[in-house]
Amino acid sequence: MTVDARPGPATAAETHAARLAAARAGLAGRGAAALLVGVGSDLRYLTGHLAHPMERLTMLVLPATGDAAIVVPRLESMAAAASPVGAAGLVDIEPWDETDDPYDAVAARIGEPDGATQPGRLLVDPNLWASHLLALQRALPGREFGLTTEVTRDLRIVKAPDEIETLRAAAHAADRALDRIAHGRLIGRTEADVSHEIGELLVEEGHQFAAFAIVASGPNAASPHHHASDRVIQAGEPIVLDIGGTLDGYASDMTRTIWVTGGDTARGPDGEFRIVHEHVLRANADATGAVAPGAPCAHIDEVARRVIREGGYGDAFIHRLGHGIGMDGHEDPYLVADSPDVLAPGMAFSIEPGIYLEGRFGVRIEDIVVCGESGADVLNEASRELLVVDG
Amino acid sequence: MTVDARPGPATAAETHAARLAAARAGLAGRGAAALLVGVGSDLRYLTGHLAHPMERLTMLVLPATGDAAIVVPRLESMAAAASPVGAAGLVDIEPWDETDDPYDAVAARIGEPDGATQPGRLLVDPNLWASHLLALQRALPGREFGLTTEVTRDLRIVKAPDEIETLRAAAHAADRALDRIAHGRLIGRTEADVSHEIGELLVEEGHQFAAFAIVASGPNAASPHHHASDRVIQAGEPIVLDIGGTLDGYASDMTRTIWVTGGDTARGPDGEFRIVHEHVLRANADATGAVAPGAPCAHIDEVARRVIREGGYGDAFIHRLGHGIGMDGHEDPYLVADSPDVLAPGMAFSIEPGIYLEGRFGVRIEDIVVCGESGADVLNEASRELLVVDG
Repeated sequence: MTVDARPGPATAAETHAARLAAARAGLAGRGAAALLVGVGSDLRYLTGHLAHPMERLTMLVLPATGDAAIVVPRLESMAAAASPVGAAGLVDIEPWDETDDPYDAVAARIGEPDGATQPGRLLVDPNLWASHLLALQRALPGREFGLTTEVTRDLRIVKAPDEIETLRAAAHAADRALDRIAHGRLIGRTEADVSHEIGELLVEEGHQFAAFAIVASGPNAASPHHHASDRVIQAGEPIVLDIGGTLDGYASDMTRTIWVTGGDTARGPDGEFRIVHEHVLRANADATGAVAPGAPCAHIDEVARRVIREGGYGDAFIHRLGHGIGMDGHEDPYLVADSPDVLAPGMAFSIEPGIYLEGRFGVRIEDIVVCGESGADVLNEASRELLVVDG
Repeated sequence: MTVDARPGPATAAETHAARLAAARAGLAGRGAAALLVGVGSDLRYLTGHLAHPMERLTMLVLPATGDAAIVVPRLESMAAAASPVGAAGLVDIEPWDETDDPYDAVAARIGEPDGATQPGRLLVDPNLWASHLLALQRALPGREFGLTTEVTRDLRIVKAPDEIETLRAAAHAADRALDRIAHGRLIGRTEADVSHEIGELLVEEGHQFAAFAIVASGPNAASPHHHASDRVIQAGEPIVLDIGGTLDGYASDMTRTIWVTGGDTARGPDGEFRIVHEHVLRANADATGAVAPGAPCAHIDEVARRVIREGGYGDAFIHRLGHGIGMDGHEDPYLVADSPDVLAPGMAFSIEPGIYLEGRFGVRIEDIVVCGESGADVLNEASRELLVVDG
């Protein structure tokens, strides 16, 4: 009998212990005092504790040195104690009652700004509510505040293999939802009704929750973040479908632009629409082709922008090329003209060029892409070719 | 022929013009300079503009005097211009491009802290992200910041009749979702699987989005905000089901505690569970019966707490009685021991007493209630009696 000495997969406690240690090292390296992490993706990443953001403060207090704690409403203290870091004893669980002041509890763990224990800046997570931050600033006067991203961005920007596979599963679930909606009945329905159905389909296909479902028909397609309205979809027009949700804690986000004819071939896409779609498709393909370790994010943005500019539509591509994706729908790195970031293997992001002609129509094609060792790993598998359907 | 001179229903533009005017009056009354409102319920209430909160700043700048504006990312400027306040010309639409600094744009509209134009505090919405607030504090040095709730809470705390009817529709949709899940198959499934199905049912029954679905079985029911886990539901135990979503912009939130027997009458609820359920049910009923204009919120909390205390479980009711509900799932008024608030007709809130016995079980019964002219208008219609099902 032989014993397999290879280490098994890391336990949740091991994963989070390593992440907490890395965050402490990051704090020390930046001379900051502590991370103050409310409910959100940083909390989930560091502790595995899941909660809903709300008016009651839940906060991981992670000092550069000394004991860490989750300050938590009493009614959630059992859940915090059962989290990976709570169960493993990696952090104290400090419950507060409904009429206590939780900001004082946080301040007590930090100490005075000139104290020997925890000098330096306090880093709060970017999604912390203003109500909490203003109360912390009152409870910790004289302290300088910054963002946790100074520390957590470097930890989270490169995805581990299991994170990439979860992003892939989310992308495929979105692919299936989009395929179903694109091949269903569309004409005669309102955008809002179709958006509602997409919410159902995203969940049916495996997401825990739908996050958004842009349905932008006809001239509304020229508004990139159009809110699905009571406009009734007509035969002979395009529809931008931009959909996403959360699957096992990771986000999906994809866009296809389709055309509905009502079964009347005379109502197919006109020449300019086809040309615009072709430009956007090529911008998507060329940018994806430029993805490689060492490529500047600003360069990938420029590759797509050049295609569209040379096609004569430069002014109509009115947003950055893409955004990082992971536990958050938008996170580092951003593919934008002034980005200082350089791609590395394991980074995950959207590539979503678009052309928007106000009052007329718009086209966007968006995939989630991972930077691999030698090029792009495109997570979405739905066809990017112009899809013309009866609708 | 006669002409009906009665005014028709207010248009969206009229509604939002009135709300903006009321907010300006509130600012003036408090000597504050401006509301700085990011994406969230305050923005929706004041402007009708819908957007997703994100790293790109969207902000209503509403000074006490002078022009109001929505500072908005270029790609969402068409949506902002099409919003009720944009279409009616009630606010300027000020787009910013991807490499612009939107915080400077906000600061430019506010002016110097000692300027004659807009002296006084700046009120940010409570849900504004810390990333945005810290950037605003940098762009507006020397300014004191507070919360919009100083002004908007008085506007939003009393619901108009149409708001109450939307809350009622949301409550009934949640009632139907809960009824379907409670009468479906439960035993042998994980909490997470049941939670996933509730997400689907909330949407099927009319919500645009599911917000949460707590499924806390057996000993997990003792954790009020338990996160649905991989625990498999067993015959002969209770399940706390606490579910909610968003319907036409208004929240639902309800809880029932059921018992699953597996069809084996020997596995029905034991004596103590029945007693605990009875206490919680009576606390719910008595608190609901105490709802009336002029009743202090702290009193309603105490009415429920007294029932549970006299039943011998005072220490096991570890959270406040309830929270206001409307465009936000939790908002003013809070039914808690130290609340200074007094009920008035049109206020909407949860009544959700609970008893939690760690390691054993828990019970919570939650309804959404509106304070009427002479007593409670209970929006949820699902039975509150102990539901014992095969599961």
